[in-house]
Amino acid sequence: MICEATLFENITVLTPTENGGTEIIENAFVAVKDRRILCVATDRTEAINLLPEYYFSYSGKDKLLLPAFANAHCHLAMTLMRNSADDMVLQDWLFNNIFPREAKLTPEIIVQGSKLAFVELIRGGTACVSDMYFAPHEVTTAAAEAGLRLNICCESTQSQPNGPTQVLTDSVSEYVKRWHDGFDGRIRSSLLVHSVYLYSESAYRELSDLAKNLGVGIQIHVSETEQEVTDCLEQYGQRPPAKLAAEGIFDVPTVAAHCVWLNDEDRALLARYGVYVAHNPISNLKLGSGIAAIERMLDAGIVVALGTDGAASNNRLDMFNEMRLAALLAKGVSGDPTAIPAHTALNMATINGYRALGFEECGVIKQGASADLQILRLTDANLCPLADLTSAVVYSAGRENVESVMCDGSFLLYKGELTSLDEEKIRAEAVNAASLIQL
Amino acid sequence: MICEATLFENITVLTPTENGGTEIIENAFVAVKDRRILCVATDRTEAINLLPEYYFSYSGKDKLLLPAFANAHCHLAMTLMRNSADDMVLQDWLFNNIFPREAKLTPEIIVQGSKLAFVELIRGGTACVSDMYFAPHEVTTAAAEAGLRLNICCESTQSQPNGPTQVLTDSVSEYVKRWHDGFDGRIRSSLLVHSVYLYSESAYRELSDLAKNLGVGIQIHVSETEQEVTDCLEQYGQRPPAKLAAEGIFDVPTVAAHCVWLNDEDRALLARYGVYVAHNPISNLKLGSGIAAIERMLDAGIVVALGTDGAASNNRLDMFNEMRLAALLAKGVSGDPTAIPAHTALNMATINGYRALGFEECGVIKQGASADLQILRLTDANLCPLADLTSAVVYSAGRENVESVMCDGSFLLYKGELTSLDEEKIRAEAVNAASLIQL
Repeated sequence: MICEATLFENITVLTPTENGGTEIIENAFVAVKDRRILCVATDRTEAINLLPEYYFSYSGKDKLLLPAFANAHCHLAMTLMRNSADDMVLQDWLFNNIFPREAKLTPEIIVQGSKLAFVELIRGGTACVSDMYFAPHEVTTAAAEAGLRLNICCESTQSQPNGPTQVLTDSVSEYVKRWHDGFDGRIRSSLLVHSVYLYSESAYRELSDLAKNLGVGIQIHVSETEQEVTDCLEQYGQRPPAKLAAEGIFDVPTVAAHCVWLNDEDRALLARYGVYVAHNPISNLKLGSGIAAIERMLDAGIVVALGTDGAASNNRLDMFNEMRLAALLAKGVSGDPTAIPAHTALNMATINGYRALGFEECGVIKQGASADLQILRLTDANLCPLADLTSAVVYSAGRENVESVMCDGSFLLYKGELTSLDEEKIRAEAVNAASLIQL
Repeated sequence: MICEATLFENITVLTPTENGGTEIIENAFVAVKDRRILCVATDRTEAINLLPEYYFSYSGKDKLLLPAFANAHCHLAMTLMRNSADDMVLQDWLFNNIFPREAKLTPEIIVQGSKLAFVELIRGGTACVSDMYFAPHEVTTAAAEAGLRLNICCESTQSQPNGPTQVLTDSVSEYVKRWHDGFDGRIRSSLLVHSVYLYSESAYRELSDLAKNLGVGIQIHVSETEQEVTDCLEQYGQRPPAKLAAEGIFDVPTVAAHCVWLNDEDRALLARYGVYVAHNPISNLKLGSGIAAIERMLDAGIVVALGTDGAASNNRLDMFNEMRLAALLAKGVSGDPTAIPAHTALNMATINGYRALGFEECGVIKQGASADLQILRLTDANLCPLADLTSAVVYSAGRENVESVMCDGSFLLYKGELTSLDEEKIRAEAVNAASLIQL
C-alpha cells in the first residue's frame, strides 16, 4: 500500500538511541513522505506543515510506533523444510534431511519458500532480512514485489571433484551488478562465503578480492560449533576468525553468523575489523551448538545483531522470540539478571540489524531516517499494564501484537492485512513446493 | 459459552499418549457432552449416535484439536507488576520492587490482576493454572466465573516478630473445606509452603500434618537458587529436598516449582516421593537463577510439568513459550539436539501439568477424558508446511494460532472471542489496580 505521505497521529514512539539506549516520545506526530521520516513532533501543526495536502492519517491511540525488525541471518526458502527434521543430531539433520532436500530445489521452489518467509516475517514486524541461499535473481525479484529490504548473497563457489573450490566470479559479478542497491536501495547484495571449513584454502583470498572489487560485503557462518574451531586449529593452526582475517575476508563489511565458540582473542579481532555478529539464539540451542556469550562481544565492542537462521533449524522466523531470548539467555547463563537489558536487546533486533545488512539509514525513528516501522496494539492483554515500554516490547510483546508494518514508507501490513502478498496463494504454493522436495 | 454437546467435525487430533509420546488422528469426529469426551471416532455416525438431537457443530477443516495447556506454577495477580521491575538483581527486584508493591495489595486489586491473567492464559490456549498468592476466596470465585481450572493455595502461615512462624490452621482449613473440589471439580486447593527458607523450622511439620489432615497437596518453591541450597545446607545440614522430605512435606502430592539446583540424590528423592516438578524456564533465566536439567529429572523418573511463574519474573503467561524453551534449552545446554524432543515437551505442557495440579482426568483426548481442549488454525503462515504435527505445535506454533479454548466442555474462547470475560473492562480495571500499587 503506497501512500505519498502518512501521518501517525498522537502515537507513542519507542526508538533506539545513538548510545544504545531507547527513547520514548509520547503523543507524537510522525510525518512520513518520500520514504523518509520528515519529523517526529509533539505538535501536530509542525508535522502537518511538512506534508502535502493529501496524506494518510493513522490514528495512534493506544498504539506504539517502533522500528521494524531486521533479521540479520536467514535462509529464506528453508521454510519449506519446517517441522520436518527436528530433534536430530546435526550430522543426521544435515546429511540425511537438509542436503537431500536441497538437491531437489529449483528456482521456482525457492521463490515459493521465500515468499512464505516474507509473509511470516512481515506479520512478525520484520521489514528487512538477510538471505543466504540460492536463486538470487528470482528471490530478489520476489522481495522487491513484497516490498521488504533484503541483503542477499548466493552461491559464490562451486566444488570440483578432487580439485580446488572454484569461485564463480562471473555469475556473482552479474548478480551484484544487476541488483546491488536496486529497488530504491532496498536490495543489497553480498558475497556468500559459507564458512572457514567448506572450501579449499585458495578460494578464501579469491573471494575476499572479489568482494573488494565488487564493493560489497560478505555473509559467513563463523564458529558455530566447537568442532569447527577444533578442525580449523588442526588444519590451519589458527582459530576461524584469525584464519578468515588472514585471508582478507574481514576487509569488507562482514556479517558473521552464530559466533558461539569465541575466545577473548577472537572477540578482539572481530571488534578490530568491525565485523557484525548475527546472534541466532534459537537455532544455536536447537542444534545443540551452544549459547553465544553476547555480553562479552558487546564488552569487546562488537556490534551484535539478531537472526532467526532458517526455519529448518528454528521453525519460527520470529524476531520477538530471538530478541527476548537473547536477553533471557544472557541472564540465565551468567547468573546476572542485569545482563543484556531490554534496551540492548531492542537495539540488536532493530538498528544493529539494519547496520549489519548495510541499511544505515534505518532502524531509528528520527528526522531523515528511512520509514521502516511497525505498529503494535497496546490494548492487548499481554501488554497490560505497560509500565516500562522497552521492557514491554522485549519481554511481553509478541507478533500477535503487530498491527501494521511499513517498509521504506509503504505499508506491507496494514491493520492485519498484507498489502503486497497474497497469503492464501503463497501458502498453497508453498505446501505444493514442500511436497516436491519431500524425501 | 455453555453447550450441552459439541461435535468437532473432521478435525485433526493431536494428543499425548500413556507412554509420553503423542498420537495423531486425522479426520476425526470428537463428541463432547456433559463436560466429557464421549468418543474420538473416524466415522461421523459413530460420534453422532452418542449425541443428543441438538449439538453444536465445530468445523475442523484446517484445524488442530489438542489438549489445552496446564500452567503448573503461577502467581496470578503479579500481572499487575508486569514490565515494572526488569533487568534487576534478585534482591533489588524482590525487596525494593515486589514486596513493597505486594504490601499495597487488597483482595479487590488481587482479583483484578488475576482476571487479567485469566484473559492472557485463555487467549494462549491455557485452561488450567496454579495460583500461589493471596485472597483465595475472591480469586477462586473469579476463576469459577471465568470457567477455568485452578489449583489455588494461599497464605498458610504468618510470621511473628521474634517468634516462630504461626500456621494459619483455621483460615486454611476454612478455604480448603469451602472450595476444594468445588465448581464441578474445576477448583482444587493446596497448601502454600513457600520454601524451605522462609519459616521457622517447627512450622514445616505442622504444615505437612495440616495438609494430610485436610487431604490436600502442597505447592512449594524448591532449590530455585544456588544460595537457597547453600543456606539450607548450612542451617540444617541437608539439601532442600532432603530437609523437606524429613519434615513430611512430600508425604502429600506436591508441586515443587523451579528445582534448578538439584543433584542426583535430590532427583532420586523427588522421584521416590512422586513429587511433581514445575519447570519455569523463562523465569529461571530472567532472574539469573540458572537452567534446570529437566532431562536428568525425567531420567530419574520425575514427572515434569511447566509453569510460567508470575508475570513479574516472566512478563508473558505464555505456555507455548515455556514449552518451546524447555525443549530448546535442554538441547542447547547438553549439546544434544535430541534432548527433550517435541512430544516430551508437549506432554509436559499438557497432561503432566494437569496431573501435577490434581486434574488426572484432563490433558488427553480420548473417550472419558474431560473436555479441556484448544483449537489451532493450521492455515497460519508460521505453521506452513506442517510436516510433523508435534514439531509444528512445539517449535512453530504460538498463541497467535489459538482460535478456541474449551474447559470442562465449555468454550472460554470461541473463534477469537472470550465468552466468559469482558476483556476491555478487565484491562481498564487492571490498569487502575496497577496504579494503586505503584511505588
